[in-house]
Amino acid sequence: MEELVGLREGSSGSPVSLRELWGPCPRVRRAIRGGLEWLKQKVFRVGEDWYFLMTLGVLMALISYTMNFAIGRVVRAHKWLYREIGDSHLLRYLSWTVYPVALVSFSSGFSQSITPFSGGSGIPELKTMLTGVVLEDYLDIKNFGAKVAGLTCTLAAGSTIFLGKVGPFVHLSVMIAAYLGRVHTKAIGESENKSKQNEMLVVAAAVGVATVFAAPFSGILFSIEVMSSHFSVWDYWRGFFAATCGAFMFRLLSVFNSEQETITSLYKTNFRVDVPFDLPEIFFFVALGAICGIVSCAYLFCQRTFLGFVKTNQLISKLLATSKPLYAALAALILASITYPPGVGRFLASRLSMKQHLDSLFDNHSWALMTRNSSPPWPKELDPQNLWFEWYHPRFTIFGTLAFFLVMKFWMLILATTIPIPAGYFMPIFIFAGIGRLIGEALALAFPEGIVAGGVTNPIMPGGYALAGAAAFSGAVTHTISTALLAFELTGQIVHALPVLMAVLAANAIAQSCQPSFYDGTIIVKKLPYLPWIRGRKISSHRVIVEHFMNCAITTLAKDAPLEEVARVVTSTDLAKYFLVESTESQILVGTVGREELVQALRAEPSSWTPGHPCLRDLLAGGCPIEPVTLQLSPETSLHQAHNLFELLKLQSLPVTSLGRAVGSVSWVELKKAISSLTNPPAPK
Amino acid sequence: MEELVGLREGSSGSPVSLRELWGPCPRVRRAIRGGLEWLKQKVFRVGEDWYFLMTLGVLMALISYTMNFAIGRVVRAHKWLYREIGDSHLLRYLSWTVYPVALVSFSSGFSQSITPFSGGSGIPELKTMLTGVVLEDYLDIKNFGAKVAGLTCTLAAGSTIFLGKVGPFVHLSVMIAAYLGRVHTKAIGESENKSKQNEMLVVAAAVGVATVFAAPFSGILFSIEVMSSHFSVWDYWRGFFAATCGAFMFRLLSVFNSEQETITSLYKTNFRVDVPFDLPEIFFFVALGAICGIVSCAYLFCQRTFLGFVKTNQLISKLLATSKPLYAALAALILASITYPPGVGRFLASRLSMKQHLDSLFDNHSWALMTRNSSPPWPKELDPQNLWFEWYHPRFTIFGTLAFFLVMKFWMLILATTIPIPAGYFMPIFIFAGIGRLIGEALALAFPEGIVAGGVTNPIMPGGYALAGAAAFSGAVTHTISTALLAFELTGQIVHALPVLMAVLAANAIAQSCQPSFYDGTIIVKKLPYLPWIRGRKISSHRVIVEHFMNCAITTLAKDAPLEEVARVVTSTDLAKYFLVESTESQILVGTVGREELVQALRAEPSSWTPGHPCLRDLLAGGCPIEPVTLQLSPETSLHQAHNLFELLKLQSLPVTSLGRAVGSVSWVELKKAISSLTNPPAPK
Repeated sequence: MEELVGLREGSSGSPVSLRELWGPCPRVRRAIRGGLEWLKQKVFRVGEDWYFLMTLGVLMALISYTMNFAIGRVVRAHKWLYREIGDSHLLRYLSWTVYPVALVSFSSGFSQSITPFSGGSGIPELKTMLTGVVLEDYLDIKNFGAKVAGLTCTLAAGSTIFLGKVGPFVHLSVMIAAYLGRVHTKAIGESENKSKQNEMLVVAAAVGVATVFAAPFSGILFSIEVMSSHFSVWDYWRGFFAATCGAFMFRLLSVFNSEQETITSLYKTNFRVDVPFDLPEIFFFVALGAICGIVSCAYLFCQRTFLGFVKTNQLISKLLATSKPLYAALAALILASITYPPGVGRFLASRLSMKQHLDSLFDNHSWALMTRNSSPPWPKELDPQNLWFEWYHPRFTIFGTLAFFLVMKFWMLILATTIPIPAGYFMPIFIFAGIGRLIGEALALAFPEGIVAGGVTNPIMPGGYALAGAAAFSGAVTHTISTALLAFELTGQIVHALPVLMAVLAANAIAQSCQPSFYDGTIIVKKLPYLPWIRGRKISSHRVIVEHFMNCAITTLAKDAPLEEVARVVTSTDLAKYFLVESTESQILVGTVGREELVQALRAEPSSWTPGHPCLRDLLAGGCPIEPVTLQLSPETSLHQAHNLFELLKLQSLPVTSLGRAVGSVSWVELKKAISSLTNPPAPK
Repeated sequence: MEELVGLREGSSGSPVSLRELWGPCPRVRRAIRGGLEWLKQKVFRVGEDWYFLMTLGVLMALISYTMNFAIGRVVRAHKWLYREIGDSHLLRYLSWTVYPVALVSFSSGFSQSITPFSGGSGIPELKTMLTGVVLEDYLDIKNFGAKVAGLTCTLAAGSTIFLGKVGPFVHLSVMIAAYLGRVHTKAIGESENKSKQNEMLVVAAAVGVATVFAAPFSGILFSIEVMSSHFSVWDYWRGFFAATCGAFMFRLLSVFNSEQETITSLYKTNFRVDVPFDLPEIFFFVALGAICGIVSCAYLFCQRTFLGFVKTNQLISKLLATSKPLYAALAALILASITYPPGVGRFLASRLSMKQHLDSLFDNHSWALMTRNSSPPWPKELDPQNLWFEWYHPRFTIFGTLAFFLVMKFWMLILATTIPIPAGYFMPIFIFAGIGRLIGEALALAFPEGIVAGGVTNPIMPGGYALAGAAAFSGAVTHTISTALLAFELTGQIVHALPVLMAVLAANAIAQSCQPSFYDGTIIVKKLPYLPWIRGRKISSHRVIVEHFMNCAITTLAKDAPLEEVARVVTSTDLAKYFLVESTESQILVGTVGREELVQALRAEPSSWTPGHPCLRDLLAGGCPIEPVTLQLSPETSLHQAHNLFELLKLQSLPVTSLGRAVGSVSWVELKKAISSLTNPPAPK
């Protein structure tokens, strides 16, 4: 009956097609069609942020996967060459070293010739950009090719150079996001918006990390911790979405390429789940964290010092200035020679790739216990089933090789960071999981029966210590805590949640109180502008007020100033903006005038210069634009508040007004000075 | 030789004790002692934040564990009574219902008689406080006892009332933090600092969540997502530290109490690790997320509507106003009667506790496949080894009971949230894992051979869907993504990382675009003040400027105003603060004057009232304090910037000045109006 009513209604209201008449329930069908239409409108809005984020994630995943694929082929070719070249030591040595030397020098030459920004990881520069500093051309899409090609060559050099891809991927991702953002704003006809761009930076950085590790959680958290000091939950959600898209696509591709059965984690482990560790072991985990913290301080100090040395040493800096590829080749030759497997490389497990290094270190058996009674052979070829054979040497045992590996990698990594090629420095730091492995193996040997608790004996798993060591050391070097989460996402197991977290906290406590982070250290050495943090404990930042540290020597232009004076001011100073005040006498702030516009306006009206003493007001009336001041500080604003404002709103400078009069200005230069003097705060006036 | 030198030096420099002389290497020992002294100074600084955070974590863990312990005893007594009371249905029914009715009405009566703030979860109020609104006495330590006792009774009512403890624990933790903060500032003699207190709130909330779930990562992320819209990395680190201390202590206690062998997760699962899910299943996971999103919208809508109904319905509101315990008892009686196991409770698996519900839902076997050929018995007593027997009914099968469970719990939970007792609403929402289980079981039955991929057949694990359902539904209801991480931390397995995350994202996408979150909904119904978000897509917030929405009708006091006028203004308005301007004519903003101080000063000097026409300036010179304006907006400041400022700095109101003149003010009331009108943005003037 109701259907009939519906039919009649349909026929009277709108024209009903024959097909519609025939089908059952026309009203229901019409309702469904209406609903779908509504859904279409709701979901498919052009210019919607979500599409943009998804595109970013998928694109980065494709790039990451393609790069991995290409690198895999090149590395395989290298291995084939090394294997097939015969038994002559000279030929083998040459085949081992020439490959990485050629790749690294090409990487350096190619990328540096296109853009000087392509070297290093890119994270320090992004960090600087997020504090509001504009680095021209740093996000230009034309750097993209240089960075991709350079990074591929760097990574194809494999375990000889031993560098990662996180940093450059963050940079690549941000470049793509900036490019997509420009296309997006053009497409929907909106004016470009700076704060929106800044939002994009953090999200893009998260995508970069997530597509390298297939780890969305730690991707977003790591990028937030490294990049910014404040962030909004909204950015965090967007970051999650984009990072999940990226990570999913990245793993999906490897399933499609039949590398895996299904989507799993990158470095899958097989730790015992029932009783993964005993309660007393927590103590050793925290001790391991402390050791990692101390070693990381030493590493950070040496790294910064050596980087400074390279910059100041006449010979090296000359070499770097004139022929970067030569320096790169020399450094690569040293690194490759040391890792030559039949030579010193025998004690460095240098036949393993980076992934295999990690896989073997996270192994859930104790090598020390397994080699107590029998010694495994050193196979002529790498045994993929027993990667850990590489770590065993009959005379030095695994302890010797592990310790030697750590000591050598310590300075080799520092040397590698000075090579001007696109490269990430996170993964090589993560390999310091070896510290944890070493301590874990020692514990396993010291307590061969395991630690007895609750009547059950459990053998100690050195792999768990390796995991904690990796998270703690990388966390300490980068001053982040999310490396703990990264360790879980990478291995697909979270059974060591609390011990790893405690190790990371211990390591961070030591590293953060002694040394600037890896990225901050690079910023300091490269002399990039940055805004230091106010640590929570410095409560005195609430007591220091803007009056104490503001820049009082400001140049103001009064509206009633004669044009001669304006011209004199403009020519004698080189500020980008001038504070415009109502009159010379009142000094009441009206807004700011850009130097360029002022010069243009002055040039355009040279006729009105001489007679009648024209003043600035005439010039402004003539079309020179005034920018309004949207925010102003008072002399009584606290340093804490001012710092917060600068950090959140990514400001460059703010005027200070008292009773409306412009009395000073604060930029991050003044803030930096004020913060650095906080340790010995001046007595409040 | 060097030792000898050291000895001689020692003897000449400082007096050397006999023991020191005898021991080996006195110089080394002295150096070590010096180092220890330095370390002691470095580490044991009184008033250091870290001790404070650790104390907070440990205290909360102790409270949480003790409460769990006490609740366990009460619940066990109830079970014993129910078991021993004989076979009479009336007696059994009475023993089942009287217990929770008595507990809930006591909980309601006791806690409400001490403080009206003790009802509900407390998270909405904290959220309001974090936007800068001051709720008097809400964090007073005297509420503590009421909340603890009330919550214990609520939880002891067990699975009949079915409420959780997250929200109240967040409130408790914040209360303790506020109390410790006051003690701390008094101890080191610092003045109380508002921004420092706000920092504490988020950290304390994280500790609250972490000590309930023993999940530090999701504790901190969840509290950040729920509580604030901006946060600093510094707070996040501090939160991590405190949450880790709390979670560690909480789990440590259960090891010490021999409940566990070692520290593990709360709801340990045994999902298959090799191939936990097949690629095509991702689709079902996302569909599950979408379903959870839709159901959560329905839940949020019904919950808010019913809460509003309870507030407006004359009968109920009268009952609630006069005798809360009676309402609580009535509601508890309904809930307990329904869950009576031999009655309707048979189809609700109501003999299971909340923990057992989750444990059984996360079971890694498929019940549908297991009951295809054989039907398990309904044991007279609960079988702890086969909790899932409770879910099986020979006629309705597990699908019937699961569906019935979900439908009943839907409205029972809504009813339970209206009872004025201290209770958390997160865990009952998490139990909607049942949605996932239902879909997972249906899939397992539809594809009994599992989904074939890559030549291997893998049976489907409905437990994984239950995990995804729990995370997606609770994430959608609370508008958070970190529930995914919570699911992993609770179960100790992270194998479903990507599918769960994608389900949570899908659920959030639907819920966030259709309904306010559970906490926002409560804020709306309770009419608490709050500052709405500006969603990222509303780019128009950059175009709307303060001039468009500021409150122009401000009351200013001029320095040259006669005291009569000041008195008139003060008596005719009831603002807490007045803007002080230089003169009636210039209206240049000088600062603010508190109403109370003004009234006091006016009362103190009645003698100088009549002669010589004294003006406000005299009063101020007489000691009435002027507060400086530390921050001021311009009419050209964008809504976006103003909103950011208010959120970050937890402001209540800001003056707007133009050329130094006070022209208006902006408080969160104006901001709220401006944001709500953003959907139809007015054309910029």
